[in-house]
Amino acid sequence: MTSVFSHISVSLDGRVAGPRPTLKDPLGEGGMQLHEWIFDLDAWKLSHGLGAGLRNVDSDVVQASIDGLGACVVGRGMFGGGPGDWDPSWRGWWGEEPPFKVPTFVVTHFPRERLTMKGGTRFEFVVDGVAAAVARARSAASGSGGRVVVGGGASVINQALNAGVVDELQLHVVPVVLGGGPRLFDGVSPEVGFEVTDTVAGEAVTHVTYQVGRRD
Amino acid sequence: MTSVFSHISVSLDGRVAGPRPTLKDPLGEGGMQLHEWIFDLDAWKLSHGLGAGLRNVDSDVVQASIDGLGACVVGRGMFGGGPGDWDPSWRGWWGEEPPFKVPTFVVTHFPRERLTMKGGTRFEFVVDGVAAAVARARSAASGSGGRVVVGGGASVINQALNAGVVDELQLHVVPVVLGGGPRLFDGVSPEVGFEVTDTVAGEAVTHVTYQVGRRD
Repeated sequence: MTSVFSHISVSLDGRVAGPRPTLKDPLGEGGMQLHEWIFDLDAWKLSHGLGAGLRNVDSDVVQASIDGLGACVVGRGMFGGGPGDWDPSWRGWWGEEPPFKVPTFVVTHFPRERLTMKGGTRFEFVVDGVAAAVARARSAASGSGGRVVVGGGASVINQALNAGVVDELQLHVVPVVLGGGPRLFDGVSPEVGFEVTDTVAGEAVTHVTYQVGRRD
Repeated sequence: MTSVFSHISVSLDGRVAGPRPTLKDPLGEGGMQLHEWIFDLDAWKLSHGLGAGLRNVDSDVVQASIDGLGACVVGRGMFGGGPGDWDPSWRGWWGEEPPFKVPTFVVTHFPRERLTMKGGTRFEFVVDGVAAAVARARSAASGSGGRVVVGGGASVINQALNAGVVDELQLHVVPVVLGGGPRLFDGVSPEVGFEVTDTVAGEAVTHVTYQVGRRD
């Protein structure tokens, strides 16, 4: 059975981006701080065609999140924010060769034809909800034996947790307070159950993995 | 110099108590789940006069938080909620022998005479803010060489973080979503700086310690 994994960087106050995002700065004020821990890592740089980088425990965590990727599910914002939904010339934030490199299902309210990019990424736009997107990603991944990664943002992960379609959640907790921005776990039901399965002290951030289920 | 330490259990959604607290259930709906990890531990039971308990990594964390305690700072709610502020016969949630066992400074808007309890706890009520309460606790602790513990709730810790009077913060992250209730870090300035100094994977919860400072 194809497993569904989600992982995301969060601040101490539970934000996955900062307040007051703009089209130029979609991560909001201070939001880039959530991701600075990753950019110098070997696993990140290699997967983005940027040569070698730091090899350390954080890089191992990132490599493990990349290994065996079969398909992705992302929100509209992670594809390319608002404009992509109405301007057919807009092909997302990532340029012609996005880093996903697998079939990537974009949860959105706006139907759109699929986009085949370079390097293996194919964006498909799903308008009937997160559970449907995960189901389609499972199908797409099943041939490869890879898993499905629900990549964010917060809204898509929160919906996926509530829909019971996430098997494993990994948080990269970044020691910073953002003071605003979308929160992971907002609107997630207290009936969703979590159990810690792995804890890794990184150089600057903390990686905690939870098995996700339903509470009795 | 007397150091100031704060530690508190938080849910995945950052709550230190559940929604809809009542006088009978001051921790709110589901809030008791934040504390269940502690009740069977050796360090907890011994410090509450309940005999021996489980010895494990969680108990070591609790013991370390108890060792060298010189004075406490708590919010009105941790002393005894609302009624204590106007009913002089109310002596708090904890009975005649509270577990603090040191001078304990209660941050409140309502002046009140000090209360000397059994077992070393002396409640003093401070109406001029958290920083003043911490300063008085520092004085009280300085003779013993012990440190000051800012015990909660969320509001007092958040104010203390903003006031720059906390040296070290330890979170006990409990893998549960509460869906409501007071949040740690609400209103804390993004200018408060945190650096991870220790990470402990407990049996069911994750203990992360941060050195607290000011960001440049």
